[in-house]
Amino acid sequence: FQSKLPSLGTSIFTQMSMLANQYQAINLSQGFPEFDTPDFLKQQITHAISVGLNQYSPSNGIAPLQQQIAGLIARRYGHALEPSAAITVTSGATEALFVAIHTLVRPGDEVIIFDPAYDSYQPAIELAGGLCQRIALTAPNYAIDWQYVTSKMHSNVRAIIINSPHNPTGKVLKEHDLQALKALLAQYPNCYLISDEVYEHMTFDGHQHLSILSVPELFKRAFVISSFGKTFHCTGWKIGYCVAPEQLTAEFRKIHQYVTFSSFTPAQHGLAAMLQHYPEHVDQLADFYQQKRDLLVSHLASSRFKVLPSEGTYFVLLDYSAISDLNDVDFCHWLTAEVGVAAIPLSVFYQDAPADKVVRLCFAKNDATLIAAAEKLCRL
Amino acid sequence: FQSKLPSLGTSIFTQMSMLANQYQAINLSQGFPEFDTPDFLKQQITHAISVGLNQYSPSNGIAPLQQQIAGLIARRYGHALEPSAAITVTSGATEALFVAIHTLVRPGDEVIIFDPAYDSYQPAIELAGGLCQRIALTAPNYAIDWQYVTSKMHSNVRAIIINSPHNPTGKVLKEHDLQALKALLAQYPNCYLISDEVYEHMTFDGHQHLSILSVPELFKRAFVISSFGKTFHCTGWKIGYCVAPEQLTAEFRKIHQYVTFSSFTPAQHGLAAMLQHYPEHVDQLADFYQQKRDLLVSHLASSRFKVLPSEGTYFVLLDYSAISDLNDVDFCHWLTAEVGVAAIPLSVFYQDAPADKVVRLCFAKNDATLIAAAEKLCRL
Ligand SMILES: CSCCC(=O)C(=O)O
Ligand SMILES: CSCCC(=O)C(=O)O
Repeated sequence: FQSKLPSLGTSIFTQMSMLANQYQAINLSQGFPEFDTPDFLKQQITHAISVGLNQYSPSNGIAPLQQQIAGLIARRYGHALEPSAAITVTSGATEALFVAIHTLVRPGDEVIIFDPAYDSYQPAIELAGGLCQRIALTAPNYAIDWQYVTSKMHSNVRAIIINSPHNPTGKVLKEHDLQALKALLAQYPNCYLISDEVYEHMTFDGHQHLSILSVPELFKRAFVISSFGKTFHCTGWKIGYCVAPEQLTAEFRKIHQYVTFSSFTPAQHGLAAMLQHYPEHVDQLADFYQQKRDLLVSHLASSRFKVLPSEGTYFVLLDYSAISDLNDVDFCHWLTAEVGVAAIPLSVFYQDAPADKVVRLCFAKNDATLIAAAEKLCRL
Repeated sequence: FQSKLPSLGTSIFTQMSMLANQYQAINLSQGFPEFDTPDFLKQQITHAISVGLNQYSPSNGIAPLQQQIAGLIARRYGHALEPSAAITVTSGATEALFVAIHTLVRPGDEVIIFDPAYDSYQPAIELAGGLCQRIALTAPNYAIDWQYVTSKMHSNVRAIIINSPHNPTGKVLKEHDLQALKALLAQYPNCYLISDEVYEHMTFDGHQHLSILSVPELFKRAFVISSFGKTFHCTGWKIGYCVAPEQLTAEFRKIHQYVTFSSFTPAQHGLAAMLQHYPEHVDQLADFYQQKRDLLVSHLASSRFKVLPSEGTYFVLLDYSAISDLNDVDFCHWLTAEVGVAAIPLSVFYQDAPADKVVRLCFAKNDATLIAAAEKLCRL
């Protein structure tokens, strides 16, 4: 049997979580919260199950959830949308990314992504027959050099995937990034944008998330993807969504209906109720996670790790070059097995990884867990 | 924007359910139960939510559910499997079909499917770059002419998709079908099998479901796909699975992890508990649905519809040629709007539909609903 993805194994997140379990290490590798989803949301989903809302939802999501998402977008980004025409509920952001890529990419098309890049982009592009052009960003700033990107553009570039706040670096795109992107895309009318904004509500130190939804010239050719798993501490529910202009949405939905058809119905009812009754949850998320980040970082102050700035997401990068000569994959294995803290090596997010000695920690954990992990890391 | 699926619109199931709602018709179109999932299962999923099992499950499904599925397969089909190597939990059978097709099909490959065919097969094949070769089965028997299939085989045929019990005809493959398939595949070592068995536990009148899992020569090159939505009356939960030999499973999982990554965690815990504590639910399903079918059919005895035999699934075909000259799409619209019963036209399952005047009814409804629908239909 000839593999269609011969170079691929099990995702790094699965691998590291398994290793963390095996060594009973504190798992700061795979990104998921240690704390639970809000009680009200649990009550609402339970209520939906108990009253029997257990059959197929409409393929594009239940109308009340589409409406609440539109309300959230209007409130946060000042952008008014027709919910039934622009919003499609998906089985997680992963499905939304996969479908958006398959909506756009044909055999021979190129897609520009920025390294370090989330691991699902490239396989999805390749399955659609596309070619990945990976542009590497470098420590410590991981800034996009838009002039360089422009030099790589040509008429076969079908899409650019951006991700802000950025996993794994925690970088947030700035106004000048969006301006540069706007200028670039103005020259390439056949190039579209996929904007992975799953950490949209987690930005720190006054950094604002600049959603593509708030830039009409960009949104008119964009798929904007988000996820409730991150926002409501329920990564296992796999409810995400894709927002796009009507015509792009129509094409997205044709594919979505044959990939999963629809998503877990009771969770859609629960999330619609949550968004309606507790809009403040979303608004408080940035402070909540900034405190987590600050707690972890302050407890690492006496360590020999160099903490890189995290402007958003629930991740932070640590430079361990003062501690070990191991490459980052070996270092993460050693850290899990010998120190009892699981992290993700940065190099796995690259096609051609720099030799940087950097790992990613997830700080979506209880304070006690973060303190315990920091204590172990300070011993090095 | 150039569509990748230009000829596709909204799925017929979505269309007819919307029309049924619009006219407040009895909805016997889209296949989903009117009754609810068992209380124990609802309690168990609620319990999983309340104790906080709300984060990512392993990408391939939680181990207890894989083990219970293996137990079910051993009990029903006498086939022993290594759960962690052979079973992948998916976001519904739709995802499993999509991923199995993408695991096998490369640009230029052909896939044989049998008309009437479930609507997701062809778009999934085309998105993978494959070509669909649709072989039409004809009323009233819808039997597969294996000699004809053999005449259509060549080395580019990468897969055959079979579906038994069959949606929409209710046909069940017989021993001689599997023998013919075995002989056929023996000649084509590069051709694989995708077996859609989502109605596996619903066969009537002593017909047995012959799973590909019980035929080692076929299973060794097969993806066998099933769904809990049909079995446990929870189509909105979107939990299905794919069973395949280890090597095929490894390739399937590479793609699955980038399509949805994982499925709703609490439902997996609930279903594992349900399978463990109420194995008899599965065994009673055939009788349960046979009574539904018999009730509907007996109440249609005085109608001018001709009821075609349904050996399995929760669907039955009706020939309305004594009632109307309308084509089946128009007839279904008229039936919904004017008579108050929504059905699915058979022609939409065909590439080149015969002029048969046949529609599909779903009998996964409460007895009162079936009787009310039959009364309306008897007035014609
Ligand atoms: C789908 S598992 C990966 C979770 C995640 O987004 C991450 O750890 O980066
Ligand atoms: C996914 S909606 C279609 C439900 C179904 O399987 C059918 O009606 O045939």
